[in-house]
Amino acid sequence: MDDIIALAKRRGFIYPSSLIYGGLANTWDFGHYGTLLKNNVRDWWWKRFVIGRDDMVSIDASIFLNPKAWEASGHVENFTDVLIDCKICHTRTRADHLIEDKLKIQAEGLPLEKLNKLIADNKIKCPKCGNFDWTPARKFNLLFETKIGIVEESQSTAYLRGEIAQGIFLNFKNIIDTMRVRIPFGIAQQGKVFRNEITLGQFVHRSLEFDLMEFEYFIKESEWQKTYEYWREGMWKWAKDLGIRETRLRWREHEEHERSHYSKRTMDVEYEYPFGFKEMFGLAYRTDFDLKNHSEKSGKDLRVMDPHTGDKYIPHVIEPTFGLSRLIGILLYDAYKVDTVNGKDRVVLKLHPIIAPVKAAVFPLQKDEVLHGIAKKLHDELKQSMVSEFDDSGNIGKMYRRQDEIGTPYCITVDYQTKEDSTVTVRERDTTSQQRLPLSEVKAYIMNKIGSFY
Amino acid sequence: MDDIIALAKRRGFIYPSSLIYGGLANTWDFGHYGTLLKNNVRDWWWKRFVIGRDDMVSIDASIFLNPKAWEASGHVENFTDVLIDCKICHTRTRADHLIEDKLKIQAEGLPLEKLNKLIADNKIKCPKCGNFDWTPARKFNLLFETKIGIVEESQSTAYLRGEIAQGIFLNFKNIIDTMRVRIPFGIAQQGKVFRNEITLGQFVHRSLEFDLMEFEYFIKESEWQKTYEYWREGMWKWAKDLGIRETRLRWREHEEHERSHYSKRTMDVEYEYPFGFKEMFGLAYRTDFDLKNHSEKSGKDLRVMDPHTGDKYIPHVIEPTFGLSRLIGILLYDAYKVDTVNGKDRVVLKLHPIIAPVKAAVFPLQKDEVLHGIAKKLHDELKQSMVSEFDDSGNIGKMYRRQDEIGTPYCITVDYQTKEDSTVTVRERDTTSQQRLPLSEVKAYIMNKIGSFY
Repeated sequence: MDDIIALAKRRGFIYPSSLIYGGLANTWDFGHYGTLLKNNVRDWWWKRFVIGRDDMVSIDASIFLNPKAWEASGHVENFTDVLIDCKICHTRTRADHLIEDKLKIQAEGLPLEKLNKLIADNKIKCPKCGNFDWTPARKFNLLFETKIGIVEESQSTAYLRGEIAQGIFLNFKNIIDTMRVRIPFGIAQQGKVFRNEITLGQFVHRSLEFDLMEFEYFIKESEWQKTYEYWREGMWKWAKDLGIRETRLRWREHEEHERSHYSKRTMDVEYEYPFGFKEMFGLAYRTDFDLKNHSEKSGKDLRVMDPHTGDKYIPHVIEPTFGLSRLIGILLYDAYKVDTVNGKDRVVLKLHPIIAPVKAAVFPLQKDEVLHGIAKKLHDELKQSMVSEFDDSGNIGKMYRRQDEIGTPYCITVDYQTKEDSTVTVRERDTTSQQRLPLSEVKAYIMNKIGSFY
Repeated sequence: MDDIIALAKRRGFIYPSSLIYGGLANTWDFGHYGTLLKNNVRDWWWKRFVIGRDDMVSIDASIFLNPKAWEASGHVENFTDVLIDCKICHTRTRADHLIEDKLKIQAEGLPLEKLNKLIADNKIKCPKCGNFDWTPARKFNLLFETKIGIVEESQSTAYLRGEIAQGIFLNFKNIIDTMRVRIPFGIAQQGKVFRNEITLGQFVHRSLEFDLMEFEYFIKESEWQKTYEYWREGMWKWAKDLGIRETRLRWREHEEHERSHYSKRTMDVEYEYPFGFKEMFGLAYRTDFDLKNHSEKSGKDLRVMDPHTGDKYIPHVIEPTFGLSRLIGILLYDAYKVDTVNGKDRVVLKLHPIIAPVKAAVFPLQKDEVLHGIAKKLHDELKQSMVSEFDDSGNIGKMYRRQDEIGTPYCITVDYQTKEDSTVTVRERDTTSQQRLPLSEVKAYIMNKIGSFY
């Protein structure tokens, strides 16, 4: 993993945030290639799950919601981590993670007494100082608080959203009233969430703020198992289509105690990091918990009518959630390979071409004005349809290495032969195989190879 | 403007946030069509100003930065609004806006004494209760504060970013160290900012959180005027290309007192709302203010080397800023038209086709299984390349009206003649003119008309 973090920084994918000021724990900034990669994954998701479908609409809700929403949703009461402190070195840590790391069992969501007992019975020591002297475990809320309104005396507490789903539930009535939708249908959203977590320094896997992609799929209660299975397949398929190695993926069902307060069934697609299997995507059956609570607390009728029976009911909901920020970390880790080319080690990111930040790089091989002009023209042509880079720094080995490390699927070299027969060398990233193609065919060749999610 | 706000809500562009709980002042949620429109504008900007250029890289920095950054940038001290309170009805309002509304002069950035004097001399009354009994004007900081870290005693204050520029400045060294960039070059970013403002209820023009698109363009000091003019042209051109009526646009130079603390020259592209000309885009010459301060406060060398002279210097910066959220409000307002079709009033959004949320809508004209099948097949084909809608609700007038109001440039009707000669009717939004085209040519026809920013 350290290799990945180093590559991510060295090649402009992900930097630790606020680095010149010594950083800010568990925040990360996406560099140029990280931003391009993230946007590509975002856009592919959007095409597949939103605009490519007839049963999905989208929203982009604000991060600040009326605070009553977070009370009704149960987040003010239940959106908590259980933390304990070492009395000796004052390390604060998550009690469940402490147990999981030591005993290799799932401990998330266990009651406080159970957590305390497990730690005591197994004499789990502080991972930092090695002592065994803990405070009792306590619950802490994960919502960041701030104050809206500049008037001190009338300031009102507001929360930064800890999940994007509530913005969807709050807009359910708007959508029903203004869009041509009928059960079953989904409301999708992409956006940032904030969680005041004690994090474990697992790169972008856990951070204070991160991007989610999610939809709530509204159904009749009787359809929930069928719909759950449908989206289970859809999520798994996309994970595979992204090019992630299937051998590092698995489904894991949440035990009852670890499920969120709103969920009746939760399964995660987990990815096998070097530090173990961790959640990549989540699939929850939230029942009618949220809409029912919002209906009760707001006094608004959030029922829909069954067109066949005329009965009114509050829809149930299946929620597929995709963590975008952590997915970028997974994609970098999963695509990272070291192989041998011409007897030398080569680092290469074998990213799926469709999400690779740069699709093509054009090099004029020699310092020659005519070659430079031809290469530049090709680059400008490619740029009309894809992200292309132009590099005339001259050392072909270095230029290839750079593009391999950012995962560019095709490098095109313009050389003296180009002057004679208008052909160029197209080199493929994974095999490093080269072929000569007519200049005029390069763009179509690459576009055809890469494909398009639009 | 009320017509626009009503249309935006009725047609699923923009809803007041948290509506079922009575709302949350000055926050807005984008509905399906608003989200699609916003994404299109975002993507066009990205293509034009970032990946379409060879002198631009991008980042996506976190919203939380090390708090020291906001001290160094001057925001903790200077990022303020001047507010006054009516002693009678306790309305709190911006002193400069009060003066501007009444006296029709620019008052932003005037010193406190000057503001107090203008209000007193002109006996400006409270707009709410009509009395003239104000507290003195005072400065209030616009940064939202929160606490990071769950441990009460060790919590540290953090700010939600009030501008996205600081994330760029903090990553300047990362970019210089890892990317192939040379002065002049830009670092671009899109993302959300938060400002704890007393707002005036001008729809999405001012809200507590909003999306910005921005870049910092790094130059040698001697190049600043030239670069300023270059981006001035580029910004104006894009405003025109977006299809905004040029007669409603103007440049306005900020007077010295209204410029931000970091700026040596600021001009705004202003748009003429019904409530007057207001900022749409901003162009600031920030000098080396930010990098110099960050260099001093962080102790890091943020100089670059002149490749010709070998001299090291801190680059100066020109900053074009584009408010994305408010731009959506402007585009809706600007595109809104009521004309007469067949003797009836028609509301139509004459959005530039390239940013229109939906490009095509397909209607089977009669309840007929074969027609339905043909129409569905065409819709599925279009969907591979653009956002298409399928509507078989049957009332052609209603279906056109709906698509006109969301700005869909092309509606395609499948009717009995289609069965005979495989042609369909393509209706153009602005002229409502219709023509018959072979089914097989529809997609290429529309794609060609709409164009592509990729």
